[in-house]
Amino acid sequence: MTGATIAQILNHMVQYSSLDRSFAALSDPTRRAILDRLGRGPASISELAEPAGMTLTGLKKHIQILEEAGLVVTEKVGRVRQCRLGPERLEEAMHWIELYRRQWDRRLDGLGAFLERSKGESE
Amino acid sequence: MTGATIAQILNHMVQYSSLDRSFAALSDPTRRAILDRLGRGPASISELAEPAGMTLTGLKKHIQILEEAGLVVTEKVGRVRQCRLGPERLEEAMHWIELYRRQWDRRLDGLGAFLERSKGESE
Repeated sequence: MTGATIAQILNHMVQYSSLDRSFAALSDPTRRAILDRLGRGPASISELAEPAGMTLTGLKKHIQILEEAGLVVTEKVGRVRQCRLGPERLEEAMHWIELYRRQWDRRLDGLGAFLERSKGESE
Repeated sequence: MTGATIAQILNHMVQYSSLDRSFAALSDPTRRAILDRLGRGPASISELAEPAGMTLTGLKKHIQILEEAGLVVTEKVGRVRQCRLGPERLEEAMHWIELYRRQWDRRLDGLGAFLERSKGESE
């Protein structure tokens, strides 16, 4: 096994686990609402918890999942933990969905062609 | 509360839970591999299980999650359960990520403008 092959496998694994984390982070409405809010500007943990009607403990769990996915970055400023959007721009997630949709369209085109042929034969 | 308002809330809830299911379904590498495979054409449960080196029971659980998300449709043909891509084209998921990326870019533009201003002030 060459170095390139190992690097490719590792790269593949990292990419896959990054996709796992991105999609899992986005699968919860509270986490999506937090990202919506931070898209309008940074906020402290308590500023995020209040409108969501959540306890700080509950909110911190969501923030941790978003941090691990690179979607949020937090920083302690004095006694307050500030949150803002992280470095993850969901490039891979976007790319994956785009490829999926292209494959889906091809399946539909194939079905359309099949139906056209069947129609021609039955006429 | 008017009918329209209730309909809007319900629509919002359905949309949100549909996003939950889509993103959760996509958060697993085996499920993404199944969708990749079905993008090339329908396959039976055992045809999907073999290359993945999975038990039928393990695979069926993944298929069920994909079915609930509308990403896969299964049909019993004789003794074989055939799987193909379902009606879910991930429109909402795509749309959500696009909006997120646009917000992210705006945050970055805002930061750029702030740095430019700070630079001007310090010169």
